[in-house]
Amino acid sequence: MRIVGKINDVRNQVKEWKKQGLTVGFVPTMGYLHEGHESLIKRAYEENDKVVVSIFVNPMQFGPKEDLASYPRDLKRDSEVCEKAGADLIFHPENEEMYFNDFSTFVDMNGLTKGLCGKSRPIHFRGVCTVVTKLFNIVASDRAYFGEKDAQQLAVIKRMVRDLNIDIEIIGCPIIREEDGLAKSSRNTYLSLEERKAATILNKSLKLAKEKIQSGERNAVNIIEVIENNIKSEKLAKIDYIEIVDSNSLEEVKEISKSILVAIAVFIGKTRLIDNFTYEL
Amino acid sequence: MRIVGKINDVRNQVKEWKKQGLTVGFVPTMGYLHEGHESLIKRAYEENDKVVVSIFVNPMQFGPKEDLASYPRDLKRDSEVCEKAGADLIFHPENEEMYFNDFSTFVDMNGLTKGLCGKSRPIHFRGVCTVVTKLFNIVASDRAYFGEKDAQQLAVIKRMVRDLNIDIEIIGCPIIREEDGLAKSSRNTYLSLEERKAATILNKSLKLAKEKIQSGERNAVNIIEVIENNIKSEKLAKIDYIEIVDSNSLEEVKEISKSILVAIAVFIGKTRLIDNFTYEL
Repeated sequence: MRIVGKINDVRNQVKEWKKQGLTVGFVPTMGYLHEGHESLIKRAYEENDKVVVSIFVNPMQFGPKEDLASYPRDLKRDSEVCEKAGADLIFHPENEEMYFNDFSTFVDMNGLTKGLCGKSRPIHFRGVCTVVTKLFNIVASDRAYFGEKDAQQLAVIKRMVRDLNIDIEIIGCPIIREEDGLAKSSRNTYLSLEERKAATILNKSLKLAKEKIQSGERNAVNIIEVIENNIKSEKLAKIDYIEIVDSNSLEEVKEISKSILVAIAVFIGKTRLIDNFTYEL
Repeated sequence: MRIVGKINDVRNQVKEWKKQGLTVGFVPTMGYLHEGHESLIKRAYEENDKVVVSIFVNPMQFGPKEDLASYPRDLKRDSEVCEKAGADLIFHPENEEMYFNDFSTFVDMNGLTKGLCGKSRPIHFRGVCTVVTKLFNIVASDRAYFGEKDAQQLAVIKRMVRDLNIDIEIIGCPIIREEDGLAKSSRNTYLSLEERKAATILNKSLKLAKEKIQSGERNAVNIIEVIENNIKSEKLAKIDYIEIVDSNSLEEVKEISKSILVAIAVFIGKTRLIDNFTYEL
Protein backbone atom coordinates (compact mmCIF):
# COMPACT_ATOMS: atom_id res chain seq x y z
CA MET A 1 0.00 0.00 0.00
CA ARG A 2 1.30 3.45 -1.00
CA ILE A 3 0.69 6.74 0.84
CA VAL A 4 0.91 9.84 -1.36
CA GLY A 5 0.26 13.51 -0.74
CA LYS A 6 0.37 14.90 -4.26
CA ILE A 7 -2.60 15.08 -6.62
CA ASN A 8 -0.48 14.08 -9.61
CA ASP A 9 0.74 10.93 -7.87
CA VAL A 10 -2.85 9.77 -7.33
CA ARG A 11 -3.80 10.63 -10.91
CA ASN A 12 -0.85 8.84 -12.42
CA GLN A 13 -1.40 5.72 -10.32
CA VAL A 14 -5.11 5.53 -11.16
CA LYS A 15 -4.45 6.16 -14.85
CA GLU A 16 -1.97 3.29 -14.84
CA TRP A 17 -4.56 1.00 -13.24
CA LYS A 18 -7.20 2.11 -15.74
CA LYS A 19 -4.84 1.35 -18.62
CA GLN A 20 -4.59 -2.19 -17.27
CA GLY A 21 -8.37 -2.39 -17.34
CA LEU A 22 -8.68 -2.43 -13.54
CA THR A 23 -11.66 -0.96 -11.67
CA VAL A 24 -11.12 1.49 -8.83
CA GLY A 25 -13.17 2.02 -5.67
CA PHE A 26 -12.79 5.16 -3.56
CA VAL A 27 -13.47 5.82 0.13
CA PRO A 28 -13.19 9.53 1.06
CA THR A 29 -12.59 10.06 4.80
CA MET A 30 -11.41 12.63 7.30
CA GLY A 31 -9.27 9.97 8.98
CA TYR A 32 -9.31 8.66 12.55
CA LEU A 33 -10.84 5.59 11.04
CA HIS A 34 -13.25 3.37 12.92
CA GLU A 35 -15.10 0.19 12.02
CA GLY A 36 -17.57 2.23 9.98
CA HIS A 37 -14.82 3.37 7.62
CA GLU A 38 -13.34 -0.10 7.71
CA SER A 39 -16.60 -1.55 6.43
CA LEU A 40 -16.54 0.92 3.52
CA ILE A 41 -12.99 -0.02 2.59
CA LYS A 42 -13.80 -3.73 2.80
CA ARG A 43 -16.85 -3.26 0.61
CA ALA A 44 -14.75 -1.29 -1.91
CA TYR A 45 -12.17 -4.08 -1.82
CA GLU A 46 -14.84 -6.69 -2.59
CA GLU A 47 -16.30 -4.75 -5.51
CA ASN A 48 -13.19 -3.28 -7.18
CA ASP A 49 -9.73 -4.34 -8.31
CA LYS A 50 -8.05 -1.39 -6.56
CA VAL A 51 -9.04 0.75 -3.58
CA VAL A 52 -8.09 4.37 -2.87
CA VAL A 53 -8.76 5.93 0.56
CA SER A 54 -8.40 9.67 1.05
CA ILE A 55 -7.63 11.07 4.48
CA PHE A 56 -8.17 14.80 4.57
CA VAL A 57 -9.70 16.93 7.31
CA ASN A 58 -11.36 19.44 4.99
CA PRO A 59 -11.31 22.93 6.53
CA MET A 60 -14.00 24.17 4.12
CA GLN A 61 -16.74 22.05 5.72
CA PHE A 62 -16.16 23.28 9.28
CA GLY A 63 -17.92 26.37 10.63
CA PRO A 64 -15.86 29.01 12.47
CA LYS A 65 -16.98 27.69 15.87
CA GLU A 66 -16.70 24.01 15.00
CA ASP A 67 -14.05 21.40 15.84
CA LEU A 68 -11.59 21.74 12.94
CA ALA A 69 -8.55 22.24 15.19
CA SER A 70 -9.44 19.50 17.64
CA TYR A 71 -10.69 16.95 15.09
CA PRO A 72 -8.76 13.76 15.94
CA ARG A 73 -5.90 12.70 13.66
CA ASP A 74 -3.73 9.55 13.66
CA LEU A 75 -2.21 8.72 10.28
CA LYS A 76 -0.16 5.80 11.56
CA ARG A 77 -3.15 3.94 12.97
CA ASP A 78 -5.25 4.92 9.94
CA SER A 79 -2.66 3.43 7.57
CA GLU A 80 -2.78 0.13 9.42
CA VAL A 81 -6.59 0.07 9.25
CA CYS A 82 -6.52 0.86 5.52
CA GLU A 83 -3.92 -1.74 4.68
CA LYS A 84 -5.67 -4.44 6.69
CA ALA A 85 -9.02 -3.65 5.08
CA GLY A 86 -7.59 -3.92 1.57
CA ALA A 87 -6.65 -0.38 0.46
CA ASP A 88 -3.97 0.00 -2.24
CA LEU A 89 -3.39 3.74 -1.99
CA ILE A 90 -3.91 6.42 0.65
CA PHE A 91 -4.22 10.01 -0.55
CA HIS A 92 -3.26 12.25 2.35
CA PRO A 93 -2.77 15.81 1.02
CA GLU A 94 -1.74 18.96 2.88
CA ASN A 95 -4.23 21.84 2.88
CA GLU A 96 -1.98 23.73 0.43
CA GLU A 97 -2.22 20.88 -2.08
CA MET A 98 -6.02 21.10 -2.03
CA TYR A 99 -6.60 24.84 -1.66
CA PHE A 100 -4.54 27.57 -3.29
CA ASN A 101 -4.44 30.93 -1.49
CA ASP A 102 -6.77 32.42 -4.10
CA PHE A 103 -9.08 29.39 -4.22
CA SER A 104 -12.51 30.77 -5.11
CA THR A 105 -14.75 28.08 -6.65
CA PHE A 106 -17.46 26.21 -4.79
CA VAL A 107 -20.12 23.59 -5.44
CA ASP A 108 -23.37 24.03 -3.55
CA MET A 109 -26.99 23.02 -3.65
CA ASN A 110 -30.44 24.40 -2.96
CA GLY A 111 -33.08 22.37 -1.15
CA LEU A 112 -31.42 19.23 0.19
CA THR A 113 -28.73 21.08 2.12
CA LYS A 114 -31.01 23.49 3.96
CA GLY A 115 -32.77 21.25 6.50
CA LEU A 116 -31.44 18.71 9.03
CA CYS A 117 -27.71 19.32 9.68
CA GLY A 118 -27.75 22.23 7.20
CA LYS A 119 -29.76 24.33 9.64
CA SER A 120 -27.15 24.37 12.39
CA ARG A 121 -24.21 23.95 9.97
CA PRO A 122 -25.02 26.47 7.19
CA ILE A 123 -21.74 26.23 5.23
CA HIS A 124 -21.09 22.55 5.90
CA PHE A 125 -22.51 21.03 2.71
CA ARG A 126 -20.92 23.65 0.48
CA GLY A 127 -17.61 22.45 1.91
CA VAL A 128 -18.56 18.80 1.49
CA CYS A 129 -19.79 19.21 -2.11
CA THR A 130 -16.71 21.17 -3.09
CA VAL A 131 -14.14 18.81 -1.60
CA VAL A 132 -15.95 15.70 -2.82
CA THR A 133 -16.09 17.12 -6.36
CA LYS A 134 -12.37 17.81 -6.13
CA LEU A 135 -11.63 14.32 -4.79
CA PHE A 136 -13.79 12.66 -7.45
CA ASN A 137 -11.93 14.62 -10.13
CA ILE A 138 -8.56 13.71 -8.64
CA VAL A 139 -9.17 10.00 -8.00
CA ALA A 140 -11.46 9.36 -11.02
CA SER A 141 -12.71 6.11 -9.52
CA ASP A 142 -15.52 3.93 -10.83
CA ARG A 143 -17.31 3.80 -7.47
CA ALA A 144 -17.29 5.73 -4.20
CA TYR A 145 -18.48 4.52 -0.79
CA PHE A 146 -20.21 6.56 1.90
CA GLY A 147 -21.71 5.62 5.24
CA GLU A 148 -25.46 5.86 5.79
CA LYS A 149 -24.80 7.43 9.20
CA ASP A 150 -24.34 10.73 7.37
CA ALA A 151 -27.68 10.25 5.64
CA GLN A 152 -28.03 13.82 4.46
CA GLN A 153 -24.47 13.84 3.14
CA LEU A 154 -25.21 10.67 1.17
CA ALA A 155 -28.41 12.16 -0.32
CA VAL A 156 -26.60 15.41 -1.16
CA ILE A 157 -23.73 13.60 -2.87
CA LYS A 158 -26.07 11.38 -4.88
CA ARG A 159 -27.96 14.47 -6.02
CA MET A 160 -24.75 16.31 -6.87
CA VAL A 161 -23.42 13.38 -8.89
CA ARG A 162 -26.71 13.19 -10.79
CA ASP A 163 -26.98 16.95 -11.39
CA LEU A 164 -23.36 17.51 -12.43
CA ASN A 165 -23.20 14.27 -14.47
CA ILE A 166 -20.20 12.99 -12.55
CA ASP A 167 -19.35 9.60 -14.01
CA ILE A 168 -19.22 7.60 -10.79
CA GLU A 169 -21.41 5.16 -8.89
CA ILE A 170 -22.26 6.19 -5.32
CA ILE A 171 -22.76 3.35 -2.85
CA GLY A 172 -24.26 3.87 0.60
CA CYS A 173 -23.25 1.39 3.33
CA PRO A 174 -25.05 0.52 6.59
CA ILE A 175 -24.30 2.22 9.89
CA ILE A 176 -21.83 0.29 12.06
CA ARG A 177 -22.58 0.43 15.79
CA GLU A 178 -20.90 -0.24 19.11
CA GLU A 179 -22.26 -3.18 21.11
CA ASP A 180 -24.56 -0.88 23.04
CA GLY A 181 -25.96 0.60 19.84
CA LEU A 182 -24.03 3.90 19.62
CA ALA A 183 -23.23 4.65 15.97
CA LYS A 184 -19.47 4.56 15.35
CA SER A 185 -18.05 8.04 14.84
CA SER A 186 -14.64 9.66 15.03
CA ARG A 187 -16.28 12.23 17.30
CA ASN A 188 -17.15 9.57 19.92
CA THR A 189 -13.57 10.02 21.08
CA TYR A 190 -14.55 13.43 22.49
CA LEU A 191 -16.92 11.81 25.01
CA SER A 192 -16.10 11.42 28.71
CA LEU A 193 -17.01 8.11 30.31
CA GLU A 194 -20.25 9.53 31.64
CA GLU A 195 -21.10 11.13 28.29
CA ARG A 196 -20.27 7.90 26.48
CA LYS A 197 -23.01 6.16 28.49
CA ALA A 198 -25.45 9.01 27.90
CA ALA A 199 -24.79 8.88 24.14
CA THR A 200 -26.64 5.58 23.84
CA ILE A 201 -29.83 7.65 24.15
CA LEU A 202 -29.65 8.47 20.41
CA ASN A 203 -30.00 4.90 19.23
CA LYS A 204 -32.39 3.97 22.05
CA SER A 205 -34.82 6.72 21.14
CA LEU A 206 -34.63 5.82 17.44
CA LYS A 207 -35.44 2.20 18.32
CA LEU A 208 -38.54 3.34 20.22
CA ALA A 209 -39.58 5.40 17.21
CA LYS A 210 -39.13 2.45 14.89
CA GLU A 211 -41.24 0.24 17.15
CA LYS A 212 -43.92 2.94 17.18
CA ILE A 213 -43.98 2.96 13.35
CA GLN A 214 -43.98 -0.83 13.21
CA SER A 215 -46.95 -0.89 15.55
CA GLY A 216 -48.88 1.24 13.06
CA GLU A 217 -48.27 4.88 13.99
CA ARG A 218 -48.19 7.05 10.86
CA ASN A 219 -48.27 10.56 12.27
CA ALA A 220 -44.81 12.16 12.14
CA VAL A 221 -45.49 14.53 15.03
CA ASN A 222 -46.37 11.63 17.33
CA ILE A 223 -43.24 9.72 16.39
CA ILE A 224 -41.04 12.78 16.88
CA GLU A 225 -42.64 13.22 20.31
CA VAL A 226 -41.60 9.71 21.31
CA ILE A 227 -37.99 10.49 20.40
CA GLU A 228 -38.07 13.91 22.03
CA ASN A 229 -39.43 12.66 25.34
CA ASN A 230 -36.94 9.84 25.45
CA ILE A 231 -33.93 12.08 24.74
CA LYS A 232 -35.11 14.62 27.31
CA SER A 233 -34.96 11.87 29.94
CA GLU A 234 -31.16 11.99 29.56
CA LYS A 235 -29.88 15.09 31.32
CA LEU A 236 -26.53 15.28 29.43
CA ALA A 237 -28.36 15.36 26.09
CA LYS A 238 -29.50 18.50 24.25
CA ILE A 239 -31.52 18.10 21.07
CA ASP A 240 -30.29 19.88 17.92
CA TYR A 241 -33.00 18.44 15.68
CA ILE A 242 -35.39 15.51 15.28
CA GLU A 243 -36.84 15.27 11.78
CA ILE A 244 -38.79 12.86 9.63
CA VAL A 245 -38.23 13.54 5.94
CA ASP A 246 -38.65 11.94 2.54
CA SER A 247 -35.53 9.82 1.87
CA ASN A 248 -34.87 11.38 -1.51
CA SER A 249 -36.04 14.99 -1.37
CA LEU A 250 -35.27 15.34 2.38
CA GLU A 251 -38.48 17.36 2.64
CA GLU A 252 -40.44 17.08 5.89
CA VAL A 253 -43.33 14.62 5.85
CA LYS A 254 -46.42 14.76 8.05
CA GLU A 255 -47.48 11.17 7.46
CA ILE A 256 -45.21 8.13 7.19
CA SER A 257 -45.43 7.00 3.56
CA LYS A 258 -43.17 5.25 1.07
CA SER A 259 -39.51 5.81 2.00
CA ILE A 260 -38.72 8.03 4.97
CA LEU A 261 -35.65 9.01 6.93
CA VAL A 262 -35.84 9.58 10.67
CA ALA A 263 -32.77 11.65 11.54
CA ILE A 264 -31.58 13.20 14.78
CA ALA A 265 -28.69 15.35 15.96
CA VAL A 266 -28.05 15.59 19.68
CA PHE A 267 -25.41 17.33 21.74
CA ILE A 268 -23.97 15.12 24.47
CA GLY A 269 -22.10 17.70 26.49
CA LYS A 270 -20.22 19.67 23.84
CA THR A 271 -20.10 16.81 21.33
CA ARG A 272 -22.65 16.85 18.53
CA LEU A 273 -23.66 13.32 17.46
CA ILE A 274 -26.01 12.19 14.69
CA ASP A 275 -27.96 9.00 14.05
CA ASN A 276 -30.82 7.89 11.83
CA PHE A 277 -32.80 5.07 10.30
CA THR A 278 -34.71 4.76 7.08
CA TYR A 279 -38.04 3.05 6.83
CA GLU A 280 -39.69 1.70 3.69
CA LEU A 281 -43.45 1.29 3.93
CA MET B 1 -20.22 13.22 -38.24
CA ARG B 2 -22.86 12.08 -35.73
CA ILE B 3 -25.43 14.30 -33.98
CA VAL B 4 -26.66 12.93 -30.63
CA GLY B 5 -28.95 14.31 -27.96
CA LYS B 6 -28.41 11.82 -25.16
CA ILE B 7 -25.67 12.04 -22.53
CA ASN B 8 -25.03 8.31 -22.63
CA ASP B 9 -24.47 8.37 -26.38
CA VAL B 10 -21.72 10.98 -25.99
CA ARG B 11 -20.17 9.09 -23.09
CA ASN B 12 -20.14 5.76 -24.90
CA GLN B 13 -18.66 7.26 -28.05
CA VAL B 14 -15.89 9.07 -26.18
CA LYS B 15 -15.11 5.98 -24.07
CA GLU B 16 -14.76 3.97 -27.27
CA TRP B 17 -12.35 6.56 -28.67
CA LYS B 18 -10.37 6.60 -25.43
CA LYS B 19 -10.08 2.81 -25.52
CA GLN B 20 -8.49 3.16 -28.94
CA GLY B 21 -5.99 5.59 -27.42
CA LEU B 22 -7.40 8.60 -29.29
CA THR B 23 -7.34 12.15 -27.89
CA VAL B 24 -10.52 14.22 -27.77
CA GLY B 25 -10.97 17.98 -28.13
CA PHE B 26 -14.18 19.72 -27.08
CA VAL B 27 -15.78 22.98 -28.19
CA PRO B 28 -18.80 23.98 -26.05
CA THR B 29 -21.11 26.43 -27.86
CA MET B 30 -24.62 27.84 -27.76
CA GLY B 31 -24.90 27.32 -31.51
CA TYR B 32 -25.55 29.82 -34.31
CA LEU B 33 -21.93 29.30 -35.14
CA HIS B 34 -19.78 31.97 -36.72
CA GLU B 35 -16.16 32.10 -37.82
CA GLY B 36 -15.12 32.49 -34.18
CA HIS B 37 -16.55 29.08 -33.30
CA GLU B 38 -15.20 27.70 -36.56
CA SER B 39 -11.68 28.74 -35.55
CA LEU B 40 -12.10 26.86 -32.24
CA ILE B 41 -13.27 23.68 -33.99
CA LYS B 42 -10.42 23.88 -36.49
CA ARG B 43 -7.91 24.34 -33.69
CA ALA B 44 -9.42 21.36 -31.85
CA TYR B 45 -9.21 19.34 -35.07
CA GLU B 46 -5.51 20.18 -35.45
CA GLU B 47 -4.65 19.25 -31.88
CA ASN B 48 -6.81 16.15 -31.24
CA ASP B 49 -7.76 12.90 -32.94
CA LYS B 50 -11.49 13.48 -32.40
CA VAL B 51 -13.57 16.63 -31.92
CA VAL B 52 -16.86 17.02 -30.03
CA VAL B 53 -18.93 20.21 -30.36
CA SER B 54 -21.83 20.84 -27.99
CA ILE B 55 -24.72 23.05 -29.08
CA PHE B 56 -26.88 23.98 -26.12
CA VAL B 57 -28.52 27.29 -25.31
CA ASN B 58 -28.15 27.02 -21.54
CA PRO B 59 -31.14 28.57 -19.78
CA MET B 60 -29.27 28.73 -16.46
CA GLN B 61 -26.87 31.43 -17.66
CA PHE B 62 -29.57 33.86 -18.86
CA GLY B 63 -31.09 36.42 -16.53
CA PRO B 64 -34.89 36.78 -16.41
CA LYS B 65 -34.80 39.87 -18.66
CA GLU B 66 -32.18 38.55 -21.04
CA ASP B 67 -32.44 37.09 -24.54
CA LEU B 68 -32.93 33.35 -23.87
CA ALA B 69 -36.10 33.08 -25.97
CA SER B 70 -34.82 35.13 -28.88
CA TYR B 71 -31.28 33.70 -28.90
CA PRO B 72 -30.73 32.64 -32.53
CA ARG B 73 -30.82 28.93 -33.37
CA ASP B 74 -30.06 27.07 -36.62
CA LEU B 75 -28.99 23.46 -36.16
CA LYS B 76 -28.88 22.68 -39.86
CA ARG B 77 -26.41 25.44 -40.67
CA ASP B 78 -24.46 24.71 -37.47
CA SER B 79 -24.05 21.04 -38.44
CA GLU B 80 -22.60 22.05 -41.80
CA VAL B 81 -20.15 24.44 -40.12
CA CYS B 82 -19.11 21.73 -37.64
CA GLU B 83 -18.63 19.04 -40.25
CA LYS B 84 -16.63 21.33 -42.53
CA ALA B 85 -14.40 22.45 -39.66
CA GLY B 86 -13.61 18.85 -38.67
CA ALA B 87 -16.04 17.89 -35.88
CA ASP B 88 -16.77 14.19 -35.36
CA LEU B 89 -19.71 14.49 -32.97
CA ILE B 90 -22.30 17.14 -32.13
CA PHE B 91 -23.96 16.93 -28.71
CA HIS B 92 -27.28 18.75 -28.97
CA PRO B 93 -29.35 17.93 -25.88
CA GLU B 94 -32.86 19.05 -24.96
CA ASN B 95 -33.22 21.06 -21.74
CA GLU B 96 -34.79 18.03 -20.05
CA GLU B 97 -31.69 15.94 -20.77
CA MET B 98 -29.52 18.51 -19.01
CA TYR B 99 -31.79 19.68 -16.17
CA PHE B 100 -34.17 17.46 -14.19
CA ASN B 101 -37.20 19.19 -12.66
CA ASP B 102 -35.61 18.98 -9.22
CA PHE B 103 -32.16 20.01 -10.40
CA SER B 104 -30.56 21.78 -7.46
CA THR B 105 -26.75 21.78 -7.68
CA PHE B 106 -24.64 24.67 -8.86
CA VAL B 107 -21.00 25.62 -9.31
CA ASP B 108 -20.11 29.21 -8.57
CA MET B 109 -17.17 31.39 -7.69
CA ASN B 110 -16.23 34.36 -5.55
CA GLY B 111 -14.06 37.16 -6.85
CA LEU B 112 -13.58 36.65 -10.58
CA THR B 113 -17.29 36.56 -11.38
CA LYS B 114 -18.26 39.74 -9.56
CA GLY B 115 -16.81 42.48 -11.77
CA LEU B 116 -17.04 43.14 -15.52
CA CYS B 117 -20.01 41.22 -17.01
CA GLY B 118 -20.84 39.81 -13.57
CA LYS B 119 -22.03 43.24 -12.41
CA SER B 120 -24.85 43.53 -14.93
CA ARG B 121 -25.34 39.75 -15.25
CA PRO B 122 -25.30 38.57 -11.60
CA ILE B 123 -26.35 34.92 -12.19
CA HIS B 124 -24.60 34.51 -15.52
CA PHE B 125 -21.35 32.90 -14.39
CA ARG B 126 -23.08 30.53 -11.99
CA GLY B 127 -24.96 29.24 -15.04
CA VAL B 128 -21.79 29.08 -17.11
CA CYS B 129 -19.74 27.29 -14.41
CA THR B 130 -22.52 24.78 -13.78
CA VAL B 131 -23.19 23.88 -17.40
CA VAL B 132 -19.50 23.76 -18.30
CA THR B 133 -18.82 21.43 -15.35
CA LYS B 134 -21.66 19.23 -16.57
CA LEU B 135 -20.41 19.26 -20.16
CA PHE B 136 -16.82 18.51 -19.08
CA ASN B 137 -18.12 15.54 -17.04
CA ILE B 138 -20.23 14.30 -19.95
CA VAL B 139 -17.69 14.70 -22.74
CA ALA B 140 -14.57 13.87 -20.67
CA SER B 141 -12.28 15.37 -23.31
CA ASP B 142 -8.56 15.96 -23.04
CA ARG B 143 -8.82 19.61 -24.11
CA ALA B 144 -11.50 22.27 -24.38
CA TYR B 145 -11.43 25.42 -26.52
CA PHE B 146 -12.88 28.83 -25.65
CA GLY B 147 -12.76 32.17 -27.44
CA GLU B 148 -10.84 35.08 -25.94
CA LYS B 149 -13.75 37.38 -26.82
CA ASP B 150 -15.42 36.16 -23.62
CA ALA B 151 -12.31 37.02 -21.64
CA GLN B 152 -13.96 36.86 -18.25
CA GLN B 153 -15.59 33.52 -19.08
CA LEU B 154 -12.19 32.14 -20.09
CA ALA B 155 -10.56 33.36 -16.86
CA VAL B 156 -13.45 31.97 -14.80
CA ILE B 157 -13.30 28.56 -16.48
CA LYS B 158 -9.52 28.32 -16.08
CA ARG B 159 -9.91 29.13 -12.39
CA MET B 160 -12.74 26.63 -11.97
CA VAL B 161 -10.75 23.86 -13.66
CA ARG B 162 -7.78 24.61 -11.41
CA ASP B 163 -9.83 24.86 -8.19
CA LEU B 164 -11.98 21.75 -8.80
CA ASN B 165 -9.07 19.71 -10.21
CA ILE B 166 -10.90 18.98 -13.44
CA ASP B 167 -8.56 16.88 -15.55
CA ILE B 168 -8.72 18.91 -18.76
CA GLU B 169 -6.56 21.45 -20.62
CA ILE B 170 -8.26 24.79 -21.33
CA ILE B 171 -7.15 26.57 -24.48
CA GLY B 172 -8.05 30.18 -25.23
CA CYS B 173 -8.21 31.19 -28.91
CA PRO B 174 -7.91 34.68 -30.46
CA ILE B 175 -10.92 36.86 -31.24
CA ILE B 176 -12.08 36.57 -34.84
CA ARG B 177 -13.30 39.86 -36.36
CA GLU B 178 -15.32 41.10 -39.29
CA GLU B 179 -13.40 43.10 -41.92
CA ASP B 180 -14.34 46.36 -40.21
CA GLY B 181 -13.07 45.10 -36.86
CA LEU B 182 -16.35 44.11 -35.15
CA ALA B 183 -15.78 40.99 -33.04
CA LYS B 184 -17.77 38.02 -34.40
CA SER B 185 -20.73 37.19 -32.18
CA SER B 186 -23.98 35.30 -32.55
CA ARG B 187 -25.65 38.40 -31.12
CA ASN B 188 -24.48 40.55 -34.08
CA THR B 189 -27.47 39.10 -35.89
CA TYR B 190 -29.73 41.26 -33.68
CA LEU B 191 -28.28 44.47 -35.16
CA SER B 192 -30.10 46.62 -37.73
CA LEU B 193 -28.03 47.95 -40.61
CA GLU B 194 -27.54 51.25 -38.84
CA GLU B 195 -26.67 49.56 -35.55
CA ARG B 196 -24.25 47.25 -37.36
CA LYS B 197 -22.29 50.32 -38.51
CA ALA B 198 -22.42 51.86 -35.03
CA ALA B 199 -21.13 48.62 -33.48
CA THR B 200 -17.67 49.17 -34.95
CA ILE B 201 -17.20 51.77 -32.21
CA LEU B 202 -16.25 49.00 -29.75
CA ASN B 203 -13.15 47.89 -31.61
CA LYS B 204 -12.29 51.43 -32.73
CA SER B 205 -12.23 52.70 -29.16
CA LEU B 206 -10.14 49.74 -28.00
CA LYS B 207 -7.64 50.44 -30.78
CA LEU B 208 -7.30 54.03 -29.57
CA ALA B 209 -6.73 52.76 -26.04
CA LYS B 210 -4.05 50.35 -27.22
CA GLU B 211 -2.27 53.12 -29.10
CA LYS B 212 -2.40 55.26 -25.97
CA ILE B 213 -0.75 52.49 -23.95
CA GLN B 214 1.83 51.88 -26.68
CA SER B 215 2.69 55.57 -26.63
CA GLY B 216 3.54 55.27 -22.93
CA GLU B 217 0.35 56.06 -21.00
CA ARG B 218 0.21 53.98 -17.81
CA ASN B 219 -2.68 55.55 -15.92
CA ALA B 220 -5.80 53.37 -16.17
CA VAL B 221 -8.22 56.28 -15.62
CA ASN B 222 -6.74 58.18 -18.58
CA ILE B 223 -6.99 55.16 -20.86
CA ILE B 224 -10.58 54.49 -19.81
CA GLU B 225 -11.36 58.14 -20.56
CA VAL B 226 -10.10 57.73 -24.12
CA ILE B 227 -12.45 54.77 -24.64
CA GLU B 228 -15.36 56.49 -22.93
CA ASN B 229 -15.10 59.68 -24.97
CA ASN B 230 -14.83 57.72 -28.18
CA ILE B 231 -17.85 55.51 -27.48
CA LYS B 232 -19.91 58.54 -26.42
CA SER B 233 -19.31 60.02 -29.86
CA GLU B 234 -21.59 57.25 -31.24
CA LYS B 235 -25.19 58.14 -30.39
CA LEU B 236 -26.57 54.55 -30.72
CA ALA B 237 -24.04 53.29 -28.15
CA LYS B 238 -24.62 53.11 -24.40
CA ILE B 239 -21.74 52.02 -22.15
CA ASP B 240 -22.33 49.11 -19.76
CA TYR B 241 -18.74 49.04 -18.49
CA ILE B 242 -15.17 49.93 -19.41
CA GLU B 243 -12.61 48.28 -17.16
CA ILE B 244 -8.91 47.65 -16.96
CA VAL B 245 -8.10 44.64 -14.80
CA ASP B 246 -5.32 42.19 -14.04
CA SER B 247 -5.56 39.35 -16.62
CA ASN B 248 -5.55 36.62 -13.99
CA SER B 249 -7.27 37.99 -10.90
CA LEU B 250 -9.60 40.29 -12.91
CA GLU B 251 -9.05 42.88 -10.18
CA GLU B 252 -9.06 46.54 -11.21
CA VAL B 253 -5.64 48.08 -11.77
CA LYS B 254 -4.77 51.74 -11.44
CA GLU B 255 -1.50 51.54 -13.31
CA ILE B 256 -0.78 49.42 -16.38
CA SER B 257 1.68 46.73 -15.29
CA LYS B 258 2.51 43.17 -16.27
CA SER B 259 -0.50 41.55 -17.91
CA ILE B 260 -3.74 43.52 -18.15
CA LEU B 261 -7.13 43.05 -19.77
CA VAL B 262 -9.00 46.04 -21.20
CA ALA B 263 -12.63 44.94 -21.46
CA ILE B 264 -15.79 46.75 -22.50
CA ALA B 265 -19.49 46.01 -22.79
CA VAL B 266 -21.65 48.37 -24.81
CA PHE B 267 -25.29 48.37 -25.74
CA ILE B 268 -25.89 49.15 -29.39
CA GLY B 269 -29.63 49.77 -29.35
CA LYS B 270 -30.93 46.84 -27.32
CA THR B 271 -28.04 44.51 -28.17
CA ARG B 272 -25.29 44.14 -25.61
CA LEU B 273 -21.88 43.54 -27.20
CA ILE B 274 -18.49 42.88 -25.60
CA ASP B 275 -14.92 43.26 -26.78
CA ASN B 276 -11.46 43.36 -25.21
CA PHE B 277 -7.74 43.15 -25.65
CA THR B 278 -4.96 41.97 -23.39
CA TYR B 279 -1.65 43.75 -23.07
CA GLU B 280 1.59 42.35 -21.72
CA LEU B 281 4.04 44.95 -20.52
